Amino acid sequence: MDYDVKDLTLAGQGRLKIEWAEASMPVLRLVRKRFAKERPLRGVRIAACLHVTTETANLMQTLQAGGAEVRLCASNPLSTQDDVAASLVAHDHVPTFAIKGEDNKTYYEHIRAALGHHPVITMDDGADLVSTLHRGRTSGKILGGTEETTTGVIRLRSMAKKGVLKFPVISVNDADTKHMFDNRYGTGQSTLDGIIRATNRLIAGAIVVIAGYGWCGRGIASRAKGMGADVVITEVEPLKALEAVMDGFRVMAMEDAARIGDFFITVTGNLKVIRKEHFLAMKDGAIVCNSGHFNVEIDIPVLEKLARRRRMVRDGVEQFVLTSGRRINLLGEGRLVNLALAEGHPSSVMDMSFANQALSVEYLAKHGRSLKKQVYPVPPAIDKEIARLKLAGMGVRIDKLTKEQAKYLASWEMGT
Amino acid sequence: MDYDVKDLTLAGQGRLKIEWAEASMPVLRLVRKRFAKERPLRGVRIAACLHVTTETANLMQTLQAGGAEVRLCASNPLSTQDDVAASLVAHDHVPTFAIKGEDNKTYYEHIRAALGHHPVITMDDGADLVSTLHRGRTSGKILGGTEETTTGVIRLRSMAKKGVLKFPVISVNDADTKHMFDNRYGTGQSTLDGIIRATNRLIAGAIVVIAGYGWCGRGIASRAKGMGADVVITEVEPLKALEAVMDGFRVMAMEDAARIGDFFITVTGNLKVIRKEHFLAMKDGAIVCNSGHFNVEIDIPVLEKLARRRRMVRDGVEQFVLTSGRRINLLGEGRLVNLALAEGHPSSVMDMSFANQALSVEYLAKHGRSLKKQVYPVPPAIDKEIARLKLAGMGVRIDKLTKEQAKYLASWEMGT
Amino acid sequence: MDYDVKDLTLAGQGRLKIEWAEASMPVLRLVRKRFAKERPLRGVRIAACLHVTTETANLMQTLQAGGAEVRLCASNPLSTQDDVAASLVAHDHVPTFAIKGEDNKTYYEHIRAALGHHPVITMDDGADLVSTLHRGRTSGKILGGTEETTTGVIRLRSMAKKGVLKFPVISVNDADTKHMFDNRYGTGQSTLDGIIRATNRLIAGAIVVIAGYGWCGRGIASRAKGMGADVVITEVEPLKALEAVMDGFRVMAMEDAARIGDFFITVTGNLKVIRKEHFLAMKDGAIVCNSGHFNVEIDIPVLEKLARRRRMVRDGVEQFVLTSGRRINLLGEGRLVNLALAEGHPSSVMDMSFANQALSVEYLAKHGRSLKKQVYPVPPAIDKEIARLKLAGMGVRIDKLTKEQAKYLASWEMGT
Amino acid sequence: MDYDVKDLTLAGQGRLKIEWAEASMPVLRLVRKRFAKERPLRGVRIAACLHVTTETANLMQTLQAGGAEVRLCASNPLSTQDDVAASLVAHDHVPTFAIKGEDNKTYYEHIRAALGHHPVITMDDGADLVSTLHRGRTSGKILGGTEETTTGVIRLRSMAKKGVLKFPVISVNDADTKHMFDNRYGTGQSTLDGIIRATNRLIAGAIVVIAGYGWCGRGIASRAKGMGADVVITEVEPLKALEAVMDGFRVMAMEDAARIGDFFITVTGNLKVIRKEHFLAMKDGAIVCNSGHFNVEIDIPVLEKLARRRRMVRDGVEQFVLTSGRRINLLGEGRLVNLALAEGHPSSVMDMSFANQALSVEYLAKHGRSLKKQVYPVPPAIDKEIARLKLAGMGVRIDKLTKEQAKYLASWEMGT
Repeated sequence: MDYDVKDLTLAGQGRLKIEWAEASMPVLRLVRKRFAKERPLRGVRIAACLHVTTETANLMQTLQAGGAEVRLCASNPLSTQDDVAASLVAHDHVPTFAIKGEDNKTYYEHIRAALGHHPVITMDDGADLVSTLHRGRTSGKILGGTEETTTGVIRLRSMAKKGVLKFPVISVNDADTKHMFDNRYGTGQSTLDGIIRATNRLIAGAIVVIAGYGWCGRGIASRAKGMGADVVITEVEPLKALEAVMDGFRVMAMEDAARIGDFFITVTGNLKVIRKEHFLAMKDGAIVCNSGHFNVEIDIPVLEKLARRRRMVRDGVEQFVLTSGRRINLLGEGRLVNLALAEGHPSSVMDMSFANQALSVEYLAKHGRSLKKQVYPVPPAIDKEIARLKLAGMGVRIDKLTKEQAKYLASWEMGT
Repeated sequence: MDYDVKDLTLAGQGRLKIEWAEASMPVLRLVRKRFAKERPLRGVRIAACLHVTTETANLMQTLQAGGAEVRLCASNPLSTQDDVAASLVAHDHVPTFAIKGEDNKTYYEHIRAALGHHPVITMDDGADLVSTLHRGRTSGKILGGTEETTTGVIRLRSMAKKGVLKFPVISVNDADTKHMFDNRYGTGQSTLDGIIRATNRLIAGAIVVIAGYGWCGRGIASRAKGMGADVVITEVEPLKALEAVMDGFRVMAMEDAARIGDFFITVTGNLKVIRKEHFLAMKDGAIVCNSGHFNVEIDIPVLEKLARRRRMVRDGVEQFVLTSGRRINLLGEGRLVNLALAEGHPSSVMDMSFANQALSVEYLAKHGRSLKKQVYPVPPAIDKEIARLKLAGMGVRIDKLTKEQAKYLASWEMGT
Repeated sequence: MDYDVKDLTLAGQGRLKIEWAEASMPVLRLVRKRFAKERPLRGVRIAACLHVTTETANLMQTLQAGGAEVRLCASNPLSTQDDVAASLVAHDHVPTFAIKGEDNKTYYEHIRAALGHHPVITMDDGADLVSTLHRGRTSGKILGGTEETTTGVIRLRSMAKKGVLKFPVISVNDADTKHMFDNRYGTGQSTLDGIIRATNRLIAGAIVVIAGYGWCGRGIASRAKGMGADVVITEVEPLKALEAVMDGFRVMAMEDAARIGDFFITVTGNLKVIRKEHFLAMKDGAIVCNSGHFNVEIDIPVLEKLARRRRMVRDGVEQFVLTSGRRINLLGEGRLVNLALAEGHPSSVMDMSFANQALSVEYLAKHGRSLKKQVYPVPPAIDKEIARLKLAGMGVRIDKLTKEQAKYLASWEMGT
Repeated sequence: MDYDVKDLTLAGQGRLKIEWAEASMPVLRLVRKRFAKERPLRGVRIAACLHVTTETANLMQTLQAGGAEVRLCASNPLSTQDDVAASLVAHDHVPTFAIKGEDNKTYYEHIRAALGHHPVITMDDGADLVSTLHRGRTSGKILGGTEETTTGVIRLRSMAKKGVLKFPVISVNDADTKHMFDNRYGTGQSTLDGIIRATNRLIAGAIVVIAGYGWCGRGIASRAKGMGADVVITEVEPLKALEAVMDGFRVMAMEDAARIGDFFITVTGNLKVIRKEHFLAMKDGAIVCNSGHFNVEIDIPVLEKLARRRRMVRDGVEQFVLTSGRRINLLGEGRLVNLALAEGHPSSVMDMSFANQALSVEYLAKHGRSLKKQVYPVPPAIDKEIARLKLAGMGVRIDKLTKEQAKYLASWEMGT
């Protein structure tokens, strides 16, 4: 078997971690069980370019259980867990090409290696497989691909628009069951987790300022309130601001919030949300962090200029002393605080996302041939099925429409 | 001035009530203020067929302030507040045609009277004005209409589909600022209010079963939890059921919930959600009510058959004694419990809805001529403006995008 | 049978109401069941001077079931429900002496009539029976009494201190199971209920200022937060203020709160908590009410002086227009808003209180002879038993200590 | 200067950590500021036997600022932070005797060294200084001592009871401002923190079973609910169980809870709260931990016997595979999960506790001579003062009683 991982002796430790993740991935487990019985991917060659983590390992096992021949490489040189990669090779016999910290050249060699068995389906997290295929190789026989991230989807849509996309791609990113978990429940918990680990500060009684009241912001606000904070929201969209008010939060301009906050969390998707005038207004000891995708939400360059001194005061906590003597503490260099200072999303969050991946692959295997060369959303039936499986995995039983009810609803939708 | 109301001596009392409503309608107040200055409806003839309530009176005053010539009739013979009608005539000089309990003949005479000044804009709550205009009269000169309810919108969409709609209509019902307030915050509070008024029971420590986790169900669940209840959700949609679980509620089939609930609230939009097998499983003393639009959600006919005895035990509470001896208490005959047993939505909820009406009328006056004979949503700019005004009315200041931020967002949406 | 009630034909209606209350008084029902079997009050003559309400009727039935000979009179001329009194006479054969609105002379005649069968146990709500007995009659044979209110207890303690109390009295007021329900859960829900009924205003998104963070204040704060309010607390005690902060509420001086509140609720037990400077600082349309025992918490005389005009704008809402033009709305004349504008505590709250009464009476019948002429708390075993019964009534099963656990705890308390 | 620490070169790093703690110890900062001005401990010799942590360092600095001559040793050989000890010596010139992992002999030598300057006041966390003084040395000149823990207080009370205590001791443990923070807010946050760090599991949607609804249990329940869990409480005390029900939680016997829980947290103060029958009933993958003081609440020996296999699956997570194949995960060997797997209480929690220490020491310096040889609670005035300082430190302003109000309250308390 072909592979390139750091150290096969790490396999035992990797397996433990994969099993721990598995325990909170009930949906993927149920999918795997069915796949093992029905073998819907028998003989389907798949190349996957994903973060090589415990959850991805479970996804690989699931595809294999369905009969697929999978090859895996990393979608980011830094996110590979070497013990997991070792276990995938040693125990699951998945040809894996990923070494944490690999250089750029190796990274692309690994991508090419993953494409070495002439896959008919691709799985991407950032569109690197698709790009590579479009650049060099023929991709005539490809049934389709899946894409995990916003960034990848934007890239692919742009390609589709220009008419250069050579096969259909399903955007897993847009599934309701992905969003719901990622943004609201995942980001909510893991952001607070990152902050508490980094600072060991008490949230109860503190004023927590959250910039942005989208799904992520709501999730964080709900958790911060649940920890006893006095939560303040800043927004630029009146509708969202109004929702925040009606949900019982104080809403104000950052200019005003800056003066009173103990913690500041940005999650807007915009840049320079906290900037010079805000830093200057903050209380001594304010804690500032970001939970948005890019580290541009806090204007760090200006903070560096304002500071007469800076130093690391705890792991992940850099303190900037302004000329006024006031200290501002920046967490995780302004990067996603839940990834930088905690473990990112819990496995049960990735469970939903990766179940969407597995079922989308199955869908492509069946229907790929009849799809156009476009970016497709996850079919709603898959989204709904995943919610159903998740409930089943939790042991939750829900109602079913009676025939009479189904008829009533249908007649209503038809407008009598 | 032409009018037909019950008793003009009620005008003083009506005025007090109109003023009380006004105090919690800041958005309409701000619109009125601008209208009074800009007079955007100068000389525009409007016919309105709406529930003649304190909030509608404020809407009429607002249109008048904008320069409109308004005539008003009732959209339901039972919802007219006679003192409000009297005040509209006596103090505001609005030709009003509405008497509580009027018979069917009078009801339609009043509709025709409201159309007596050849309006160019219509305002409907159930599409009766539009229907009347389409039936008998020419409607060539009509710029457009507005429609408040789902039922009316369904009727109008059907007409548009068949190509028989003679002028454009704006569906106020779909505005975000209407939904957000009506369903989540309005229904949430007023449903609990209706239940507590009717029963004087303690919610804390009780098991409250809510059938349906749409916006209304969420609103009710949130308020019931806030009152100390142990909330149980039933659903037929896996995605909504899953959201309920993730929000910390127990989710189960009605069959199981029936056995443990102290209170049952239906808000599904479907029929027979609580039916024979559920009644038979309920605890002695269970309280059952509905907050969905139609009184079909609880299968009352079957409850009547199951009961060996029935009697009114409190205002609005009918008790059915089953053959097992167990007692089931039905509130407000299964009609909307917040309307039947409390005062319906607070004025501040109607504020948003009626501000949408006022600004949609202004939009029709300006742009009606260029619209097609279709059903339109409320323009998003109006929705946003209303949220902005509501915040302003509450004294809440929010952030504005800097030029750099606006540019960044735009570039992002363009996909780099 | 001796009695004096308004109109026996009201008995049917009274019985319905008594049954409705019974349905949410599970503890009293369980006590009654045991009493009916064990007859611990066989032949015990009891005089009760209580508010003649549906809950009191259930208490009387319970004492009767235990074998007692009860006579009942009103503890307040205004709180008698005439239909309940009629039902007590007609259906339960309880000699009842109470007519709503009776004059002072009749009130005391009724008290004397209740004492007409030479009771050995008294039950008071304000100490009027005890006072009467101490004034005129010999009370040598009295085993003891119970007292429901703080005011009564203060009076009795003063008598005990001076050595003039002639028999032991149990202060029901101090039981944990009374406090817990009355103050936290009862007052919390019913205060919000009173405010919403009186105003029909939306609580979500409103700033609700609560003066006082004792048990009542906490209960109200918790419910207001649960309804979506932004809650502000004022306090004079640093420890309570700190608890409020740690519970996630904003705490500030009334001077500052006055400027931002939409609703103001006093529940401090002190006087003039809202006074001149606060009224002058309030926003136009502020709503002010009291949920403390006496109507002195809001300085109404000064409000009257500040107002250039006053009028009733809704049932229970008086509007004061200040010289600045700003309007302040006072609910229920500053009296307990839950009693003045809603129905007071739900029956399930009184259930706990009256179960304490019933079991204290049983205790006096058994142990009264051996008690001193003092004011006693409710025996802790009774308090605990009531909590146990309440849980049983709710179908809640809890753990029991194993022998090993009981021993461990005991050894620990002994300090090893 | 006399001292014994591990490595003085660690002092720089220690200082950073001490400063980080200082930033969230506003009360101690305010006390220190006053002490520096008033010097109430000028020349007072103090021996302190406490955990040598960043918070203790701040306490030492505070006492020094007040003029005291302090010597410090460790109250537990394992809890010493060597860098903090180094900084205390190098920067603060506090004679410190503490090395992490010191053997028993060294531990007692360090205690004796701390007593080397013939202190007049002792500070204990477990009564080791007091015991040593009572055993060997004369303690005639000692003004008094303070004690931090329950265990120490029990020991001292027993000594006082037997008449062998030679000087007065203040039990800091009982102060309201200590309890409030430690139990409710500290334990609540840090327990969830420990669980999330150890497992990286999602709390939202999970069933969290909490054994015990004392102050700690309430704190944990409130935080778990705030994270989106469905919280289940078990209790043996009916009153506490009832409170839990009224607070909206489900309450059941552990026997029933064992079947449904995803997480189990014991915090009862009792032993074998989770035992054989419960382990056998648990779902596969259940997570079990303890937040009570001793690691006896979970019956670990029986779990070991039930398991056919055990292994560490993550740091701090030991998995026991039962013969049924079901896996039970035990966190932190059943020790306090917030200490074993997170950082224990945030500094702001210790702030309150140590401010009580500092002010109690001042009190002893002033009044020690007039106290009896007993265990005293912290004077209520100190408790209140600390709450006041904490509010001041947070910038919260509260109301003061007017003269009229103070008089009214006083008259009321006198019972007129």
